[in-house]
Amino acid sequence: MGIVVQKYGGSSVADAAGVKRVAQRIVNTKKAGHQVVVVVSAMGDTTDELIDLANEVSPLPPARELDMLLTAGERISMAVLAMAIQNLGHEARSFTGSQAGVITDAAHGKAKIIDVTPGRIQAAVDEGAIAIVAGFQGVSQTTKDITTLGRGGSDTTAVALAVALKAEVCEIYSDVDGIFTADPRIEPRARKVPRISYEETLEMAAQGAKILHLRCVEYARRYDMPIHVRSSFSEKEGTWVVKAEDVVQESSMEAAIITGVAHDRSQAKITVVGVPDKPGEAAAIFRAVADAQINIDMIVQNISEAKTGLTDISFTLPQGEGQTAMTALDRVREQIGFESLQYDDSVGKVSVVGAGMSSAPGISARFFEALSEAGVNIEMISTSEIRVSVVVAEAQIESAVNAAHAAFELGSDEIEAVVYGGTGR
Amino acid sequence: MGIVVQKYGGSSVADAAGVKRVAQRIVNTKKAGHQVVVVVSAMGDTTDELIDLANEVSPLPPARELDMLLTAGERISMAVLAMAIQNLGHEARSFTGSQAGVITDAAHGKAKIIDVTPGRIQAAVDEGAIAIVAGFQGVSQTTKDITTLGRGGSDTTAVALAVALKAEVCEIYSDVDGIFTADPRIEPRARKVPRISYEETLEMAAQGAKILHLRCVEYARRYDMPIHVRSSFSEKEGTWVVKAEDVVQESSMEAAIITGVAHDRSQAKITVVGVPDKPGEAAAIFRAVADAQINIDMIVQNISEAKTGLTDISFTLPQGEGQTAMTALDRVREQIGFESLQYDDSVGKVSVVGAGMSSAPGISARFFEALSEAGVNIEMISTSEIRVSVVVAEAQIESAVNAAHAAFELGSDEIEAVVYGGTGR
Repeated sequence: MGIVVQKYGGSSVADAAGVKRVAQRIVNTKKAGHQVVVVVSAMGDTTDELIDLANEVSPLPPARELDMLLTAGERISMAVLAMAIQNLGHEARSFTGSQAGVITDAAHGKAKIIDVTPGRIQAAVDEGAIAIVAGFQGVSQTTKDITTLGRGGSDTTAVALAVALKAEVCEIYSDVDGIFTADPRIEPRARKVPRISYEETLEMAAQGAKILHLRCVEYARRYDMPIHVRSSFSEKEGTWVVKAEDVVQESSMEAAIITGVAHDRSQAKITVVGVPDKPGEAAAIFRAVADAQINIDMIVQNISEAKTGLTDISFTLPQGEGQTAMTALDRVREQIGFESLQYDDSVGKVSVVGAGMSSAPGISARFFEALSEAGVNIEMISTSEIRVSVVVAEAQIESAVNAAHAAFELGSDEIEAVVYGGTGR
Repeated sequence: MGIVVQKYGGSSVADAAGVKRVAQRIVNTKKAGHQVVVVVSAMGDTTDELIDLANEVSPLPPARELDMLLTAGERISMAVLAMAIQNLGHEARSFTGSQAGVITDAAHGKAKIIDVTPGRIQAAVDEGAIAIVAGFQGVSQTTKDITTLGRGGSDTTAVALAVALKAEVCEIYSDVDGIFTADPRIEPRARKVPRISYEETLEMAAQGAKILHLRCVEYARRYDMPIHVRSSFSEKEGTWVVKAEDVVQESSMEAAIITGVAHDRSQAKITVVGVPDKPGEAAAIFRAVADAQINIDMIVQNISEAKTGLTDISFTLPQGEGQTAMTALDRVREQIGFESLQYDDSVGKVSVVGAGMSSAPGISARFFEALSEAGVNIEMISTSEIRVSVVVAEAQIESAVNAAHAAFELGSDEIEAVVYGGTGR
């Protein structure tokens, strides 16, 4: 049998008991005849504690040194995990990102993987050992300095290693059983999706579902590496993220049109009021926002009022960037000539996602009718080939998720979702 | 001006405040015109905490993984120290042992330095940066695995780097002002020695003085690298450890015969009672002890009793190895044919050390007379070219140190020793 890459997050190895549990699970996979490569995050809150320490000596820690500091976290977890596995009688060797051949650019704190040369990992598994690799880290091709990959970095490490090692599958473990049709904490009838395409997973992740990070799914899609999302607390099959053809093949003839409902509470909305409706105004607004390094999501421009010649432009952005964006826009108010700014961070986004949507008319209508019947007011709308998203008041997110879930008949007859342990990372 | 290598122990960087204080001190050295390379140990109790974590998952952690784990400690301290220096407006870059070119053999937990190739360190200081290097660690030449150097490893890293970089001096910082004629906690009239030879320092260290580790002094002696032992809590000159000629040159014509009095509380004594006095018996006893990996220190064999033809053999060893040695010897009792074993761990060793001793007769007599006058009973004696050591009851160590210190007129008229902070590492 071939290589299985498994990734365990910080909540799965939060303490010695967690490490031992994960070690047993890894040994079970090895005993089943697989070659096993494990990618592990820092234990529990280690990363946050290291950041606190950095802030004690420096208000703005230099990025190179912060990366050096943070990589100590995975160094601890991987060595301890290797010890726990050896204590179960199986050979295990830990490797830093650098030793595992994770080559990145030099962008400290958000490095991109350029190449993976896993010669030492391949040698270790060929010799019968279990290889434990530090997630989230690599080494710069140019400066030879230690880098970190930023958010979702360990998931990306796992997929990149799986690709480079030609693994059978990349298993991503967390504290939930897989990808659900909606967040089980909001929608008790949410159902685990057995298979989902890369594209749908990307839309779900982009729309606020927290199971997988965009970068890791993009990497897997590019190289067609199957991801198995599952819980480290149970033996159940989770959700397979695969290419679209494989989803259809395995499903019944009547493929589900909608795969799931995602929601996102982290959004805020800015409305630029009274913008002169002439060429270049919108460009000037979004240039100002872009120069402030703000990531915007949806944009809506209303038609202008005939008598004033003025229009309003609204856009959504992460709440954490709201203050920066408002300041940047206020600075160009006179130059652009708009009237005022409105800021609202009590909004949320609800999206229905499904690859079948592109060939099924009427999805938007059915979604909006369901929201209407549930008394949910739609503030903004945006769509993609396989997604319809609406911005609603934050207080109405749950009603909107429940209404959409019911309208597209996503629920199971029984409650099957179980959320284990704390929050995943 | 040339390169200064400074080594700071864990007690000097025990917390953020300590890190900031050390950072300021490093910056002061840089401002004085030196190129500065700093070797740092893990912060405070980090190493012990990591060992505790390892023991939580494995009763006998594999050495390779334990090294990987423990090196996380210096990774944290060096990154945080680099941040603190940058926060003072000076460029600083941290480097792991591997990045600094510390090449070792593959003996995990007690690796020996084979070579030092400090190309990145030289480049960093040539570019005007302060280089911060993780102490205690290196990379195996053959396996490319991360290794640790064992006890005193950070001191050895500092001296080895100083040699490889052709530094002017290697400064070893701790929480005492230098090397004293005796432990100031026992002998209030102890005097700081301004200069001492490598050989005397080796004898002092081997006999229990805790300032410098043997390996580091041996390395410095081999390459004639001056070591300046001083306190990170004060600006005072400390003790210079240099070659013997340089000590004499600087001292007055009447060089001190005795440089200092060392003591060691960590010893135990085993007596093998009733050994048949015939060839091969002693060899068999010490072969059994050597096979159990015990480090023995002094050995004394009494003359045999004429009528029985039996003799007693006593030796000293570290207390921590007492149980292992007793078990190993008990196993060969019948084979060797001795009568019984006695174990005593309430003993200690007191030594007078001085390079002038070899040309000054009567040192032993003066030492033993002083002990006798102080009512101290001598249990064992051993000597070297520049040292006389006695084993005494643990309760009499202080009296013995004070008697020797007074007999050789080592004391100053004022009390000048100050011990800062906690214990050094």
